[in-house]
Amino acid sequence: MNVRPTDPRAPPAAAITRATIDHIAIITLDDARGRNCLSEAMLAGLTEAFARIAADKDVRAVVIEANGPAFCAGHDLKEMTAHRADADRGHAYAQALMRACSTLMTDIVRLPQPVIAAVEGVATAAGCQLVASCDLAVASASATFATPGVHIGLFCSTPMVALTRNVAPKHAMEMLLTGEAITAEDARRIGLVNRVVALGTARAQALALARAIAAQSTAVVRLGKEAFYRQREMPLTQAYAYAGDVMVANMLAPDAEEGIGAFIEKRAPNWQDC
Amino acid sequence: MNVRPTDPRAPPAAAITRATIDHIAIITLDDARGRNCLSEAMLAGLTEAFARIAADKDVRAVVIEANGPAFCAGHDLKEMTAHRADADRGHAYAQALMRACSTLMTDIVRLPQPVIAAVEGVATAAGCQLVASCDLAVASASATFATPGVHIGLFCSTPMVALTRNVAPKHAMEMLLTGEAITAEDARRIGLVNRVVALGTARAQALALARAIAAQSTAVVRLGKEAFYRQREMPLTQAYAYAGDVMVANMLAPDAEEGIGAFIEKRAPNWQDC
Amino acid sequence: MNVRPTDPRAPPAAAITRATIDHIAIITLDDARGRNCLSEAMLAGLTEAFARIAADKDVRAVVIEANGPAFCAGHDLKEMTAHRADADRGHAYAQALMRACSTLMTDIVRLPQPVIAAVEGVATAAGCQLVASCDLAVASASATFATPGVHIGLFCSTPMVALTRNVAPKHAMEMLLTGEAITAEDARRIGLVNRVVALGTARAQALALARAIAAQSTAVVRLGKEAFYRQREMPLTQAYAYAGDVMVANMLAPDAEEGIGAFIEKRAPNWQDC
Repeated sequence: MNVRPTDPRAPPAAAITRATIDHIAIITLDDARGRNCLSEAMLAGLTEAFARIAADKDVRAVVIEANGPAFCAGHDLKEMTAHRADADRGHAYAQALMRACSTLMTDIVRLPQPVIAAVEGVATAAGCQLVASCDLAVASASATFATPGVHIGLFCSTPMVALTRNVAPKHAMEMLLTGEAITAEDARRIGLVNRVVALGTARAQALALARAIAAQSTAVVRLGKEAFYRQREMPLTQAYAYAGDVMVANMLAPDAEEGIGAFIEKRAPNWQDC
Repeated sequence: MNVRPTDPRAPPAAAITRATIDHIAIITLDDARGRNCLSEAMLAGLTEAFARIAADKDVRAVVIEANGPAFCAGHDLKEMTAHRADADRGHAYAQALMRACSTLMTDIVRLPQPVIAAVEGVATAAGCQLVASCDLAVASASATFATPGVHIGLFCSTPMVALTRNVAPKHAMEMLLTGEAITAEDARRIGLVNRVVALGTARAQALALARAIAAQSTAVVRLGKEAFYRQREMPLTQAYAYAGDVMVANMLAPDAEEGIGAFIEKRAPNWQDC
Repeated sequence: MNVRPTDPRAPPAAAITRATIDHIAIITLDDARGRNCLSEAMLAGLTEAFARIAADKDVRAVVIEANGPAFCAGHDLKEMTAHRADADRGHAYAQALMRACSTLMTDIVRLPQPVIAAVEGVATAAGCQLVASCDLAVASASATFATPGVHIGLFCSTPMVALTRNVAPKHAMEMLLTGEAITAEDARRIGLVNRVVALGTARAQALALARAIAAQSTAVVRLGKEAFYRQREMPLTQAYAYAGDVMVANMLAPDAEEGIGAFIEKRAPNWQDC
């Protein structure tokens, strides 16, 4: 939740910047003044970036990080409330905003490449949802996580969708009902982040994870990530039937032949990414 | 599981007492002699108390605590077995008892107000289920938790419904198959309770949590709690569509306008609870 | 994942051995040279052993352990790749292999008796799935767990079905995407194993757990285990209706009468196992 200072003389800041290092796309939330809130510009920037990455066969993994002390402060409250004067009291705007945000979060889940959050500062509300929606998350010891919407009369109902799919219900409920922030260490303990690292090293550690993933076959990583989220929502028997089919297709793919061959011959594999 | 000593000369104890402090309903299991077992009287008392609370707009949060060394010892075995001589060997009684107990547990989940368990002693079988069914739970260092039905030939099948929705399967299975008690610290580690506090302070700590929740808009807490349990049972895409609708309705509600306005104006919100 | 050394002069090793101690079936993976991989022989041996145990009313619990430094190294890569030259490029073989493996894993879940893994060494890929599929797991401090398929171009898609039903998604995703091994202590922290014990004592500790379970009514343990996995896949209301029916039937069973009677009379129960 954030109120962005607006200065009509300033040029609109680019909400994100994007770089690519060793086939790893690095998305940087770049609106430190606005605490990297998910403004219309930020949502549009991220959605477009992920659409590009999804279609970019050169990108093997993604890291999301942020400039400034906040990782992401959630929705932009000023934008959110600017439409109350509309004939429908902002209903259409609110609906469009929620759709854009939920679409972004499911885009991350559906992205062929794994996405790793690198969190140094506070991640609140939809910012916490962003971390929960990533496949992996690295947090520095200074990171904090909160779903504080209840404090402003706006329960974190959509962040809760991602949060409850990551952590046990009593932990999620405590965050949602009290709105209190938890530390990086607590976030690790309850399953919201994978690793807690030294201050200032979240990006480097996320990149190390991304490099390990980028060394694998993109075709295999892609089929594995897709199967991960699909089988999770199935009953056990159906999940095994589906995952078995995925595994059979995988076994017959060129990269399994290459990978198994390389393992037997004790050499490095030479992926064709198919 | 408990066998209640019966003394025909003693007046039937009131199974629960109820107080209200600062808009927080405090339900005290008050049958220390019967180890606060879920006797017919206790089930009826709790069910009625929750029905009243559900309809009471003055109550903003609920704390359940207990008098005596046991928090709740589960079903009353003497009552449970008294109907074996019936023509149907107690089938109708057993069925009615299970329905009454499951209804109580789902009443807690569906209650508009959050419910916080404050546990100082042992919580076993349906007593452990009661803790698992609460939205939050605070345990003192002396609290223990067990689902020991297997020891008396009566597997904790209904407690398991609540337990497995709180903790990982291997933890739940160990409690159910061995019947062994776990400590408060273990309960916290596996997600069954939120916090472990000093001996004798569970009630005070639960009240502190309740006060933090009572300071929020009841309308917002109510919609958030309902959405929490509903979206949990949906696939991701459906959950986002549903939670997005909840959030849109919330954004247009008076208390979101007030809360966001107060946040922007850096003042305390003045909830209308709608 | 393993490549089994083959020596045409050696007699085919019996893939498993089986013993029974105090009504506890002990299955020992007994192909140390082949790192106890789930070869055709191993899959057939285990499937047959579990079929026998399922029908054996004398067996009250099961322990799976292994000879040699590896608990189980997953599928046999040499067998898996031997059929690539087939007209269908091994499709039929791969499909049959996946079916056999998934059937084994669901056989464990459906087995009337609880199954406890005793892990001293590495459990990788389908070997990690085997541990995840057991009802309980004890690991010694030297045990490690990994789903490293991604390293050989063959994502651990079927192991993931069992893994994601045991641990939080970010933990599972990290294991699956990086392929890195985790320690026994990490496995305990994330819920993949119940207990970490001193080197060389996993078998003894698993046996102790099995003995505690074997002291209970087999009929009650059977109905409890079945209900555990069935109710897990149901929405809350349906789960309570189903578990309530299970509990009513249980209450009217002879062993509940005996167990409750013994408890009230403060004597040891004499189970009839019905």
